[in-house]
Amino acid sequence: MARRTVTGFDVAKRAGVSQPTVSRALRNLPGTSAATRERVLAAALDLNYIPSASGRTLSTRTTQRVAIVAEQLTNPFYPELVEPLRNALGEHGYRAVLVADRPDDPVTTDALADGSYDGVLLCTVTRRSTLPRDLTERGIAHVLVNRILDVPESSSCSFDNVTGGRLVGDFLCQHGHRRIGALHGTVDNSTARDRALGLRSALRGHGLHVRRTHLRRVPFSYDAGYRGAVNLLDRPDRPSALFCGNDVIAIGALSAAKALRINVPEDLTIVGFDDIGAAGWGTVDLTTVQCDRDELARVSVELLLRAIDGAEPEQRVIAPTGLIPRGTHGRPRR
Amino acid sequence: MARRTVTGFDVAKRAGVSQPTVSRALRNLPGTSAATRERVLAAALDLNYIPSASGRTLSTRTTQRVAIVAEQLTNPFYPELVEPLRNALGEHGYRAVLVADRPDDPVTTDALADGSYDGVLLCTVTRRSTLPRDLTERGIAHVLVNRILDVPESSSCSFDNVTGGRLVGDFLCQHGHRRIGALHGTVDNSTARDRALGLRSALRGHGLHVRRTHLRRVPFSYDAGYRGAVNLLDRPDRPSALFCGNDVIAIGALSAAKALRINVPEDLTIVGFDDIGAAGWGTVDLTTVQCDRDELARVSVELLLRAIDGAEPEQRVIAPTGLIPRGTHGRPRR
Repeated sequence: MARRTVTGFDVAKRAGVSQPTVSRALRNLPGTSAATRERVLAAALDLNYIPSASGRTLSTRTTQRVAIVAEQLTNPFYPELVEPLRNALGEHGYRAVLVADRPDDPVTTDALADGSYDGVLLCTVTRRSTLPRDLTERGIAHVLVNRILDVPESSSCSFDNVTGGRLVGDFLCQHGHRRIGALHGTVDNSTARDRALGLRSALRGHGLHVRRTHLRRVPFSYDAGYRGAVNLLDRPDRPSALFCGNDVIAIGALSAAKALRINVPEDLTIVGFDDIGAAGWGTVDLTTVQCDRDELARVSVELLLRAIDGAEPEQRVIAPTGLIPRGTHGRPRR
Repeated sequence: MARRTVTGFDVAKRAGVSQPTVSRALRNLPGTSAATRERVLAAALDLNYIPSASGRTLSTRTTQRVAIVAEQLTNPFYPELVEPLRNALGEHGYRAVLVADRPDDPVTTDALADGSYDGVLLCTVTRRSTLPRDLTERGIAHVLVNRILDVPESSSCSFDNVTGGRLVGDFLCQHGHRRIGALHGTVDNSTARDRALGLRSALRGHGLHVRRTHLRRVPFSYDAGYRGAVNLLDRPDRPSALFCGNDVIAIGALSAAKALRINVPEDLTIVGFDDIGAAGWGTVDLTTVQCDRDELARVSVELLLRAIDGAEPEQRVIAPTGLIPRGTHGRPRR
C-alpha cells in the first residue's frame, strides 16, 4: 500500500509540539510528560508515522528479518550453507539473523516466535523435532532447509541424498570394491538416513551389503570420523573402501588412515558427501558428492517468501546431487 | 528497574475494551477503530506495557541485539571468530546478528545505525576505514575485533600479531633457514601489516631479510595462497621456508607444493598463522601460530558492554599468540 512518507514534522504539527519533543517522546527519553507522550503517540498513530526500524515493526508488522537456525558454525558445512542463504535473503531485501541450535542449548519456539522475525529457515531439525509443528501452530512462516520430517507438515528443500548415496555405492562397486565399510551420520536426521539408504540400495543391486563390523554411526564431525575410522581400519579384515556420511567425517577418516600409515587411494578408498570447500583443497583432494548449495538456498528462500506472503500448501523440493571424482578413490589391491 | 509484569488484561481493563481488542490494536490489525487504537495505546503507554520483542524496543530503547560485521563466512577464519563472539554475547543475554561486509557490497553506517542494534563488533575494517569514526559520531557503541586502526578512536581487541610474526621468524632461523620467502596478506589491514613487521624484525636480528623475489602480498584466501606459492616455488632459487600471512594462505601453499611435487617438510617448510580448525587436521597438520579466539571474544564483548553502558574512554587490548609446531617444518637440506 503506497502512501506519502509522513515525517516527524507532520506528527509535531498534529500534536502541537516541537519536532525534538516528538523524537524524545517516541524514543521514551526523559524530558517529556506522560500527557505529551500520549498526544505524540496518538498523532503518530493517526498519521501512520514510521519513526525507525523498530518503530516500523509495530506499524507494519514486518521486521524484514529472517532467522536462520543452524548448528555450530565451526562445523564447516554450516557456514557454507548459511552464506548462500544470506545472499538469497539479501537479494529479496531481508536481513538474516543467525540463531544457534546446540544439543546443550536447543533453540526454543518462544525465541523464534517473539515477533523479531518474519520467517524462519530451519537447517538442523531432527526427524522427530516438534519445532516445525510448534511454528505452524503459532503461525510463523518457516521452511526446512537440508532436512525433511517423517510427518511432513512444513515446506522443505533438501538434497537428493538417496540418489547421492546410490551414486557412491555404484561407483565403489564399479571400481571392484566388495568389502565396503561405512561411517554413516547418526540416524536422528533425514540427511544421514537417506544417504545410508542410497548406499544400501546400490550395494543390494550388486549383491553386496555393509557388514555389521564394518559399519559405524557417528556425529557429523572431524573427531568422530577420525575415531570411527581408527575403529574400522585398525583390524586385519578392514574394508577396502569407506563410505562417509559427510566430508568432515571423511577428512577425519583420511587423517586416521594417515596416522595408521594406510595409503589413500592405493590401499584404501575414501568417499565423502557435500563437497565443502576443504574437499577441493589440494592437501585433501576428496572424492565426494556435490550438493548445489546455491540452488538449495535460492529455492528455500523462495518457499519461505511464499509462506510469508500467505497460506500456500507446504511443498517439498529436492535438489540434485552428483559425484565429484578427485584423488581419494582407486581399485582395491586384491 | 524492576516492576510487576503488566499484562494485556491490565491494558484492556484500563482502556475499557476486551483483551483481543488490545492485541489487535497493538498489532495494528483491521477491526478496531482509530479511536479505540488511540485509547489502547495510551493505556499501554501509561502502564509501560511490553507487548512483544519489537514493542520492547520502543519502550526501553534496547534491542538486546549486537551486530557482528564480518567477511564471507566461507573464509574459515570468520566462522571460528564469530562462534566464540556469539557465545560470549549469549552469556550476557545478547543475540548476535551477522552482517556481511564484502568488497563488492560494503556495509554502511546507516545499516548499523538504524536502531536495530545496541552495539557493533567490527571484525573486518581496513586500516583507514571511516566506519569506526562514523559510528562514534552517531553515538553507536562499537569495538574493533582482530583489527586496529592507524588513528585509534575506538576500543579494540586484537591478537599480538607482531610477536606472533617474530616467533615464526626466530623459529625458522633456529631451524637453519636462510632463504625465507613470505606470502603476506595485503597491507590494507593491521593484521597482515603487523605479522609482516614481526617477521622482518626477527630476521633482522639474525642478519637476514626476505628478498623481493621471495615475497608476495596476497588476499587471505586459499586460491591466492596457491597461486602466490606456485609463483615463488616454481623457480630454481626457491626459498627453503615460507612464512604465510594466515592458515588459509598456508593451506593453499601446501597444495601448491604438492602439485609441484615438492615434499613438505623434507624440501620445504611452510608455517601458517591463526590455528584454525583445519590446521589441526591430520591431512593438513600445519605448523602455525595459535590465536586464542575465545579470549579475544570474551574481552571484545566486555569492552562492548562497557561502551553500551556509558562513555568509557576507548581501550586497546592485545591478546597473546604462541607457536604450535606440527608437521610442516624441518631443517633445510643444504
